[in-house]
This record gives sequence, structure tokens and C-alpha cells, in this order.
Amino acid sequence: MKNNRFIAIVGCGRLGSHLANHLSRAGNSVVVIDMDESTFNDLSPDFSGFRVHGDATQMAVLKETKANKADVLIATTHEDNVNLMVAQVARRIFNVPHVLARVFDPKREAVYAQLGIDTICPTSVAAKMFLQAVANGTAEREGAQS
Amino acid sequence: MKNNRFIAIVGCGRLGSHLANHLSRAGNSVVVIDMDESTFNDLSPDFSGFRVHGDATQMAVLKETKANKADVLIATTHEDNVNLMVAQVARRIFNVPHVLARVFDPKREAVYAQLGIDTICPTSVAAKMFLQAVANGTAEREGAQS
Repeated sequence: MKNNRFIAIVGCGRLGSHLANHLSRAGNSVVVIDMDESTFNDLSPDFSGFRVHGDATQMAVLKETKANKADVLIATTHEDNVNLMVAQVARRIFNVPHVLARVFDPKREAVYAQLGIDTICPTSVAAKMFLQAVANGTAEREGAQS
Repeated sequence: MKNNRFIAIVGCGRLGSHLANHLSRAGNSVVVIDMDESTFNDLSPDFSGFRVHGDATQMAVLKETKANKADVLIATTHEDNVNLMVAQVARRIFNVPHVLARVFDPKREAVYAQLGIDTICPTSVAAKMFLQAVANGTAEREGAQS
């Protein structure tokens, strides 16, 4: 893949800052937006992107981030409603080609799919991994005892 | 794997309740512990396990759940400190054979590993999936244009 994309990341918590650091290091232009300026402390010293302090659900803030020029927008806040709103604006109004969102409530994933937004649900992913680990752990112990 | 294990789940949020429902349905004996009784509403009507309302960091509460008899204990609360403490008690004092914990701060995973506790970090898992999706999405679009 090309690594000179313009990528907007909404939310600079653990997930957002991790993605921002990684994608910036890979050579992309990255802008991160967060209402809480202190979250920018999680950006690594070599992060070469922009930081925008503001509420991404405000159209003026999204425009300030030049989200309308983004190749990719990733909504990573802890609020499903915020992620849905920002992702929808990016996809439908700004025509951002690739929009991804973190979603906490798996029941909402269908809504995002209809809007052409890719979703990742950490809870569902973690649940699958825990169930797998429980199954494997049990199998290993049974194997060890026999 | 055998599905007649006794499984203690600490925290009945989205992840805990999902695991409890699934593992109970699969035929295991399940006990869930949460400080907030309203979280038990997320358990499905066919959940056949026990509900314990209390603070799992209190030894008396953990004993009430019979965590010392558990084959598996899963710490799924939103607090890394709580998960670490409960998992440690389960592993070291109760000798629970298989202990798993959700961990939010990936830096802590080494500590858990030393204690013989399996960990799953939803943030790390989600980050990998987002980076993969960004890479794939870009590749697909480039493919489509060429």
C-alpha cells in the first residue's frame, strides 16, 4: 500500500494514539482530533502529524482538520454515538473514501455497514479470543493429565 | 473440550455478560460477580449460572463465589488494577488452574505472564485490525483504479 495518505483520526486515547503513531511513522500525513488536549501526551516524540483540540462532532472542527480532504478517517472515541456521527459526516458529506469506526455495541454494526463504514468491535473480538483461550487452556490441561 | 467446568467471571459488562451467556449455554457452571447489580440484566434469560453482587477484590466475596473451586477464572472488569488483583488471588492463593484477564494497558502484560495469567488486550487487538483494514482498504482502492 502507499504510505503517503492523509489520515484523520478522531479520538487520541490508547487506540487512537497507537494508530496515529504507527501510521505517522509509516509515512502518512496524520491529523488527530480530541476534546482533551492531555491525550496528545500519548503521541510519540517522532509523531509528525497535526493535533487539533476540539469536538469532532462540530462541523467547524472537522473542517479545521481538513477531514474533507482525508483519504481515510478513523473514529476511535469511547462513544458509539460520536463515532457514528463523525463517520457518517465523513462518509456522506465529505465523501471520504475509506471510513472506519470503533463500535462498542455489536448491535449497531448493521447500521454502519449500511452507511458504507467499516467497523471493528473490540468487545466481540476480545470475547472470541477469550472463548478460544478457555477452550485451548482446557484442552491443554486435559492433554497434560492423560 | 469438556463443557462441565466451573467458571468464575469477574465483571458483568458487555464482555463479561457475553462470555457468561456463551459459556453457560455451552453447558458449564458459571458464576458472575459484579459490584453493579444492574449489569446482570445483560445476562440472557437462559443463563443458568449464579449471580453474586459484590466487590471481587474482597476475599469474602471471592469465597462466596466459590472462586477457590473454579476450573477457570476470567477477570473482565474495566479496571486493570482490579483484574490484576483478582487474577493474582485466584492463581496464587486459590490455585485456580486457568486464569485469564482483560488488560487495557499493554505494558502490564509482562507482569501477568510472570504470574501465570493469560491476558487479552482488546486495544492491541483492535489496533492490529484497524491497521490491517486501512492497508487492505487502500490496496483494494488502488486495485480498483488500475
